[in-house]
Amino acid sequence: MNAEIIAVGSELLTPDRLDTDSLYLTAQLNAVGVEVVAKAVLGDDRARLTEAVRGALARAEIVLLTGGLGPTEDDVTREAVAAALGRPLVFRQELLEAIEQRFRRLGRTMAEINRRQAFLIEGAAALPNAHGTAPGQWIEQGGRVVVLLPGPPPELQPMFADHCLPRLRALLPPLAIRTRVLRVAGMPESDLDQLISPVYTRYQNPVTTILAAPGDIQIHLRARSVSEAEADRLVSELSAQIEALLGDKIYSRDGAPLEAAVGRLLRERALTVSVAESCTGGLLGERITSVPGSSDYFVGGFLVYTDRLKTELLGVDPRLLRDHTAVSEPAAAAMAEGARARTGSTYALSTTGVAGPTGGTEATPVGAVFIGVAGPQGCRVRRFRFLGNRERIRALAAHTALDLLRRTVLQLE
Amino acid sequence: MNAEIIAVGSELLTPDRLDTDSLYLTAQLNAVGVEVVAKAVLGDDRARLTEAVRGALARAEIVLLTGGLGPTEDDVTREAVAAALGRPLVFRQELLEAIEQRFRRLGRTMAEINRRQAFLIEGAAALPNAHGTAPGQWIEQGGRVVVLLPGPPPELQPMFADHCLPRLRALLPPLAIRTRVLRVAGMPESDLDQLISPVYTRYQNPVTTILAAPGDIQIHLRARSVSEAEADRLVSELSAQIEALLGDKIYSRDGAPLEAAVGRLLRERALTVSVAESCTGGLLGERITSVPGSSDYFVGGFLVYTDRLKTELLGVDPRLLRDHTAVSEPAAAAMAEGARARTGSTYALSTTGVAGPTGGTEATPVGAVFIGVAGPQGCRVRRFRFLGNRERIRALAAHTALDLLRRTVLQLE
Repeated sequence: MNAEIIAVGSELLTPDRLDTDSLYLTAQLNAVGVEVVAKAVLGDDRARLTEAVRGALARAEIVLLTGGLGPTEDDVTREAVAAALGRPLVFRQELLEAIEQRFRRLGRTMAEINRRQAFLIEGAAALPNAHGTAPGQWIEQGGRVVVLLPGPPPELQPMFADHCLPRLRALLPPLAIRTRVLRVAGMPESDLDQLISPVYTRYQNPVTTILAAPGDIQIHLRARSVSEAEADRLVSELSAQIEALLGDKIYSRDGAPLEAAVGRLLRERALTVSVAESCTGGLLGERITSVPGSSDYFVGGFLVYTDRLKTELLGVDPRLLRDHTAVSEPAAAAMAEGARARTGSTYALSTTGVAGPTGGTEATPVGAVFIGVAGPQGCRVRRFRFLGNRERIRALAAHTALDLLRRTVLQLE
Repeated sequence: MNAEIIAVGSELLTPDRLDTDSLYLTAQLNAVGVEVVAKAVLGDDRARLTEAVRGALARAEIVLLTGGLGPTEDDVTREAVAAALGRPLVFRQELLEAIEQRFRRLGRTMAEINRRQAFLIEGAAALPNAHGTAPGQWIEQGGRVVVLLPGPPPELQPMFADHCLPRLRALLPPLAIRTRVLRVAGMPESDLDQLISPVYTRYQNPVTTILAAPGDIQIHLRARSVSEAEADRLVSELSAQIEALLGDKIYSRDGAPLEAAVGRLLRERALTVSVAESCTGGLLGERITSVPGSSDYFVGGFLVYTDRLKTELLGVDPRLLRDHTAVSEPAAAAMAEGARARTGSTYALSTTGVAGPTGGTEATPVGAVFIGVAGPQGCRVRRFRFLGNRERIRALAAHTALDLLRRTVLQLE
């Protein structure tokens, strides 16, 4: 079965807003075997919307509309869909009472305009809204399904999961879906794709999707079958081949981001880490501590933006800074060792580089970053040259530092 | 004039990708007075795409298509638009030569499939692509305009700016646009809207758009007129009224984010700042140093995730931590004062709180955060209770700390 999604709201046609509800709905629909073949965004314009719903119903078995169910005159989704289906809107006393009750529970009085939200398209099933006033609507007509959903994600998502998915499953053939997400650090997307595409392109099922962010690649495998065991087998078969090719470049097999994968490693081995950040300015600590429970292995660290603080807080020899500058291999090593000594952590990571846009020299251009890791086996420093703007260079430096820690803990090259 | 935008590419119908080209195009179109009335996303499906282009041309004067201009069989935008317009595709030798030349410059040989990119819809003007192989196409037919653009932003954006905007301007009446972006910290969106909506709703021109992020609100004013002086006057008139209502809650009048506005304040006054972060774990330093040139006023700081480091690095009295816990007003004050003393900065900010999801108690629940600022006039600490998940609580803590510094430097309450 195919679906089209129509997002309604003039604010979604400004330069500042995107329809993100459709991402959630697409994931949910794909998981029951429904493909999304088109998406549209329309303003609060009844005539345009009516025409769009008619067009979508001519092409797809399932049409989902999000937004435009509010109480004001601007909210025209109910009227437009009713017109497209050639059905009247009918007032439902029990919906009005539910809306009034919700207002009472919040200690407020319902405004008269909220009455508009108690109208259903004739023949529609009302979908309860646990987190807002507008009920959703589910209409079946001539083998097609039209669903009206509220726009705010906290209202839409539970309504879809609780009241639409069960109805959809009843209409659809049984389907088991298994997904696996492999994550890879430190490899350009083109190299990775060249390596693994001969394998994954042999499979129509699982479907493989590759998502690349700076320094980080996600490989999504999604298998479908009538049986869960077969879907499991399919995804495991392809995953094993990809894992054999990528080896220790893979840092997680369950979709966990690098900071969580590194955190898990440290916790399992009862190790701790600290940081000494110059060019990343706190980003490395921020990423480590974004993981709940990171206080189990993160002790703290130092942000040392000036040479003076590198010396005073971390004990970096001022002569070293004079002779080699602060953006150098010896400085990165001294920073990591200083942080490790002062915090007593098992490992310490350091970053020093030129994030730009200015401050580059011929010897250390914008994007040159030294990353150090000090640990029980001593200290190693790697030099990198990251390309991009300040934000990208800092993000790559923090990401690469985390991966260097992972490789050090696992005693990989 | 009205425009519709159609983004082409099956990858844009997955749960992981959004069409962001349309945001850029919408901003550019709005700036010349064109409204976007509908957007669509379609897969690489020639029949669907042909139908969608026909529909869009029946409704809007300008139809922009992005993507699907690549060299492979999947790329069907050219064929679909040609079919919708009832025009043939014609091979253009000079386009092939330009593509071949581009490959030669990169030291590569053109693959045979790239010939597909040398076909133009009959009567189209080719739009040069300075950053890729696929030329764009501009077609006028019966008072309507259809434009084919490549999907990758580095190709699309210069092509649109250099080759479409001048053509559009020639078709459109002259229009001057003036925008202003006011940014506000520390005010709930509903309070702000209640305060200023009686003013801005009186104006159809400028158009006011309010964008809210956690703790941060942007007020966009956009005025249009035939004359630049009149557009200036319109935007200034409304802005002055809003500024009078919001007063010192406004931290920037040019759209600069809080960390840049605070940085500007510090630089102007030759002041410096350091940080002592517990619950924000580096995020505060990261935000301050995300601004180019922040080394002028940021010296560094401390990430102190354990009680031991709060004592050893910042000199916080262990008895204070025992008596009051690390999440307390005295701890926040001692952290800020310790950071200021150890770095010699003019000001020091501290954060200590419970970011969650676990670790809350009755006295200090998840979301309780103490923020301190130490400076020449002494130290003040504020207690907050932020709602939301770990990420949101940390983001609000960092944002609020920056605003507390701004208010302290400006000697506001």
